[in-house]
Order: sequence, then C-alpha cells, then structure tokens
Amino acid sequence: MEHPQYNQAIHGPYEFFPVGDFALEDGGVLRDVRLAYATFGALNANRDNAVLITTWYGGTSKIIETAFIGAGRALDPARWFIIVVNQLGNGLSSSPLGAAERGDGYSRLRIGDDVSAQHRLITQKFGISRLALVCGGSMGAQQTYEWAVRYPHMVARAAPFCGTSRTTDYNRLMVGRFIDAITSDPAWNQGRYASSTEVQAGLRRHARQLAITGFSSEFYRQRLWRGLGFTRIEEFVEQYLEAFLVTADPNVLLCMAGKWQRADVSRGFGGDLGIALGRITAKTLVMPIDEDLLFPPADCEAERRLIPGAELRILHSPWGHLACSGSDPDWMKQFDRHVDELLASPA
Amino acid sequence: MEHPQYNQAIHGPYEFFPVGDFALEDGGVLRDVRLAYATFGALNANRDNAVLITTWYGGTSKIIETAFIGAGRALDPARWFIIVVNQLGNGLSSSPLGAAERGDGYSRLRIGDDVSAQHRLITQKFGISRLALVCGGSMGAQQTYEWAVRYPHMVARAAPFCGTSRTTDYNRLMVGRFIDAITSDPAWNQGRYASSTEVQAGLRRHARQLAITGFSSEFYRQRLWRGLGFTRIEEFVEQYLEAFLVTADPNVLLCMAGKWQRADVSRGFGGDLGIALGRITAKTLVMPIDEDLLFPPADCEAERRLIPGAELRILHSPWGHLACSGSDPDWMKQFDRHVDELLASPA
Repeated sequence: MEHPQYNQAIHGPYEFFPVGDFALEDGGVLRDVRLAYATFGALNANRDNAVLITTWYGGTSKIIETAFIGAGRALDPARWFIIVVNQLGNGLSSSPLGAAERGDGYSRLRIGDDVSAQHRLITQKFGISRLALVCGGSMGAQQTYEWAVRYPHMVARAAPFCGTSRTTDYNRLMVGRFIDAITSDPAWNQGRYASSTEVQAGLRRHARQLAITGFSSEFYRQRLWRGLGFTRIEEFVEQYLEAFLVTADPNVLLCMAGKWQRADVSRGFGGDLGIALGRITAKTLVMPIDEDLLFPPADCEAERRLIPGAELRILHSPWGHLACSGSDPDWMKQFDRHVDELLASPA
Repeated sequence: MEHPQYNQAIHGPYEFFPVGDFALEDGGVLRDVRLAYATFGALNANRDNAVLITTWYGGTSKIIETAFIGAGRALDPARWFIIVVNQLGNGLSSSPLGAAERGDGYSRLRIGDDVSAQHRLITQKFGISRLALVCGGSMGAQQTYEWAVRYPHMVARAAPFCGTSRTTDYNRLMVGRFIDAITSDPAWNQGRYASSTEVQAGLRRHARQLAITGFSSEFYRQRLWRGLGFTRIEEFVEQYLEAFLVTADPNVLLCMAGKWQRADVSRGFGGDLGIALGRITAKTLVMPIDEDLLFPPADCEAERRLIPGAELRILHSPWGHLACSGSDPDWMKQFDRHVDELLASPA
C-alpha cells in the first residue's frame, strides 16, 4: 500500500536499487534495504559524465530535481548523467516509516552507511568507477564529504554546500531541539503511533524550531516571507512551514536527525579530522552561506583548511540555510556559477 | 511562607515598595502589587546621582549587583545611588508564583506596566525627578527604552544593551520556543501545577532552548564552556544550564516571556517607532553584542538611527547574548568603559 506522503505521485518518478541485507557500521543488520533514486540525462560511453547528488534533511530527490536540475543550469541533463539518491531513512529509501518498521537499526544509521549503500548503487547498478561530481547540501554535504574521504579515487570533484563533514557541538544542540520537539509529544509514544497525524503537536513544534534556525535574522528583518505570498508572519509559519512539515513522518525525521547529529568523517581515522579530510583528492569547492545559522561559514572554513587544494566560496543569501532548498533565485545563480566553473575545471 | 527559590537568602537583600492596586495598560487590575528593589550607595542632597538598573529575563537584582556594581566599576556605589528594580513577574516583585496566583492579569503584563510602576517607586519613594542613568540589558533594555520614551524629561542618560525597544519578528519566534518548551509539558497543566518540580521536563527543554540562542556559535566553536569548569559539553548543558533553570518557576518564566514578546515602545504612538524613539532626549548609548543571536547588532542599529544623537557601541564577545549576564570579564571591561564615558558626559 502506498504511503500517503512518501510515494511516486508526490516525489516521483524514482526507481529502487536493492541493496539487500545490509550490515551497519555501528552493528546490526537492516533487512532488504533499498535505495530510491532518480536519474536525469544519459551515461556516456566512457561512463565519465556522472554526477551524484545527495539529499538533505526532510528532502527527497524531487526537491533536488526542482531546485538544481534543468536545461541551461550547471546540472544540465543534456550534458551530465545525474543520479539523485535518497538518503536512507528519508521515507523513499528504506525507512522506519511509521511505528511498524521502527527498529533499533534505523536509530543507529550513520552517514557512512548511506555512502556505503550508495557506493553499491554507483558501482553495481551503473558500473561507474569515477564520479565527475558529488554534490549535496546540509545533510547532503555530510554525504558528499563522506564520499570524498572514503572513496577518494572515485570522486573527481566535490561541491558540499551549507554543511560540514563533522557535526559541530553547536549544530548538534540545534538538531537536538528538532528531535525533542517531536519526542516530547506524548502522542509520539516512543515511536509507536498509529498514524503520523497523531503527532501533529510535535510536528508543528518541529516546524517552529526550523523557523528559527533554518532562516536567518536577515530573512525576518527583510520580511522575505512576503515574497512567498503571505501578509502576516504567523501565516508564513503556520501555512508554509507547519503545513509542509506536519505531513512528514515523525520516525523518518528522527532517523535523519540522529544521523545528522552523528555525522563525522573522522570516525574511521581515530577522530583526526585532518587525517580524514587530508585524504580528499577531489577538486573541492566548500560553499557555505553567509547568513547560515546551522552551518556558519567559520565552521566550513575550518574544515576547508584541512582539504588539499579546496577553495572556499561563500554564497550570499539573506534567507540563511534554507536558501539551499531553492527558495532564493539569486542564490541559485551563484550556485550554478560556481558549479559551472568546477565542472569546467580539469580533475 | 518563603518560596524555596525566590527569597532573601538567595536573591537578597531587597526591599518592597507597595504599588497597591494597579491598573494594567491592557485592562484589568492587579491587586496589592509590590516592587522588590535593592539599593547601593546613597542619594545625594541634590538627588541627581541616581542610577536605575532594570532586570532581564530570569534575572533578579542579585545578578545585576554581582555583574555590574562595585568599587572601581562604572557603577560604583561610592559615587552613585544605584536602584536595581526587579521586573514584575520575576519572582521577587509581584509574580504569578505557582498556580495559585496565576491570573489573567499576569498574562497581560507589558513592559509599559513595569515602567509605570517603577516610576512610582522613583518619584514617590525616593523623590527623584531625574535619573542620571537608566540602564539595562535584554528585557532590561526594553524597560530602559520605555523609560526614555515615556518619561524623556526624567532620563538624563540611557544605556540599553543587548536588547531592542520593539521586539522583532525573529526575536518573538525565538521567545516562542522558550514558551513552548514549558507549555508543551503536560505537567505544566495550563499553569495549574502543584510544584514547579513537576514541570522538570519542560524546564529542561527550556534550558536547552536557551543553550542554542543565548550563546553564540563562536562560544561553542571555542568551547568557552570549558572555562566554567566542564570537560564535556553535555555536562555544561545539564549541570550549568539545566540545573540553574530547573529551579525557576514555570509561570514566572512564562509571564516574563510573554512580556518580552509584546515589548513595543511605539504602542502608544500609533505603532510609529520613529515618533516613539524620536521623543528620547537622554544621551543614549545603544550597545549590542557582535555575536548576539537574540538581538543582532543590525536590529539595534536600525533603532539607534531613530534616536536623536544616540551612538552605537558594538561590544565584542564570543559568548553571544549571555555575555551580558557577566560571564565574560572582557565584555564587562568594555561595558564599564562605555558607561564610564557616558556618565562623565554632560546631560
């Protein structure tokens, strides 16, 4: 039976790649894992025009397609074979959708598990040995960094935006507020709700939490929400943020949030971020947003210094973090310009 | 019976000024209102050396004394007669302490009510017609601005720090998260709890909310919490923030938070902030903190432009907003330097 929210009508078209039984980094096995992915364009004969785009918290391949892919864009399907892969737990790829599938396994998922599963998709399904670009924002940046650290020979170029390779203390505290907004709702009931509609209060709190961290003070100072068609800020919060996020599945959000908090490319390298990021051979553009409260440029710059040859490109947007979801046309132009340049450079 | 938290042993010594039955700006009457206040130094014969300091959210006269008053400080009791007045609803002045006193009146309190009651203290109790300085941070800045707008002839100098005269949209959303952290706890029970210890879960959430807005990303980047004696960030959050805030009374916090959200000096002037702030004749220093997430310098500067002759002095602290509670010795030196200069200037 189709899920009312996570389905082809809303998020498709996408296909499934069967990963099968899947051993997790932190122990345990997830049964019958599958990745949902969407492709655009065609893989060329040399198999060297493939671009992998990863998804962010609460996002699916659909919003990536809408925000980044198209004729005349940096990521143009006429030129590139673009694979957008849904992260584990996001509702389309294998997920703890609803109470029935809420198992310990999902609460232990790591970004490393995502990238390990995605590696099978890229190599086994498509026979690709080197990606022209891996690109992703926010949690997508976490996956992008993990790719570049784990499989340096496979990543020619990397464009992580609005994210870090290791979750900072402050960021972890902010994500903790997302988690707590949901789990503090008695209706969440340790994940054993019958329907996500029961957890409305928690999901609305979660949306309001995103309102204060996903957008910047400048966004509110300039009242940019008026550009979305609202005349009062409460309408924006209720009819835009809450209305959107109340349709999400609580356990799906919690699965992703936990993975977000635990993101750390240095984990396999004794916690030494310098060693981990020093492995990267991809030509890398690190692209924070100036007004991003979740991933301030200073955090991104600190990591850039550890990546051989990486360049910092600070993107400007009064929207803050959520500019990366495609809401700010000017931000998208900046993004395209930098990614165009990156794709044109030899690697 | 003494309240276990709001008492002379913890917050004293302070005295009470009986305001009596008190008509609120938004309608209704609070019965037997009293203001708790503490004084330092002596009023001189000309009654022209009086300084009024107002309190912030969750603060009392005690922390103001500790952070700002002393020999060799800008606010030196040897030179100034310093009155620290507790805001209404803060647990020492009349407050909805516990369920018994939770009345509609307290949920309608405004900063204007505070300043109106404080005006009676200053004029009736002390016979002061002009204050050499009114000074306060955060919600204390709201009261400072309200004083300078409402009684311009009585305020020679004003030093609002880390705060604004009208709560911005973004700030109101952030304070909404404080409120929701408490009210989402079923034990809060619409304010009808038997003891604040029942509302521990909500109060802990409230503390964690403060952790992400009261401190800056730079505070966490530099791990400045280590200077408070902690080795792990979770210890800092649990043993410092939660342990402190869990002793507060939920209805007291909610009373203050509501007043914070509604702060607006323009209210009596048709919502025209230019007209309201244009009334100020006090020599005014507007002092935001560079890393303050709750009251970013841009919001304070926008208001400064509307105040005749006011100067912007941006204070620097990686602590962010809560530097103003006296945690950062370097910040206190900057504060003293500016206030020294302000007090030395003719007004």
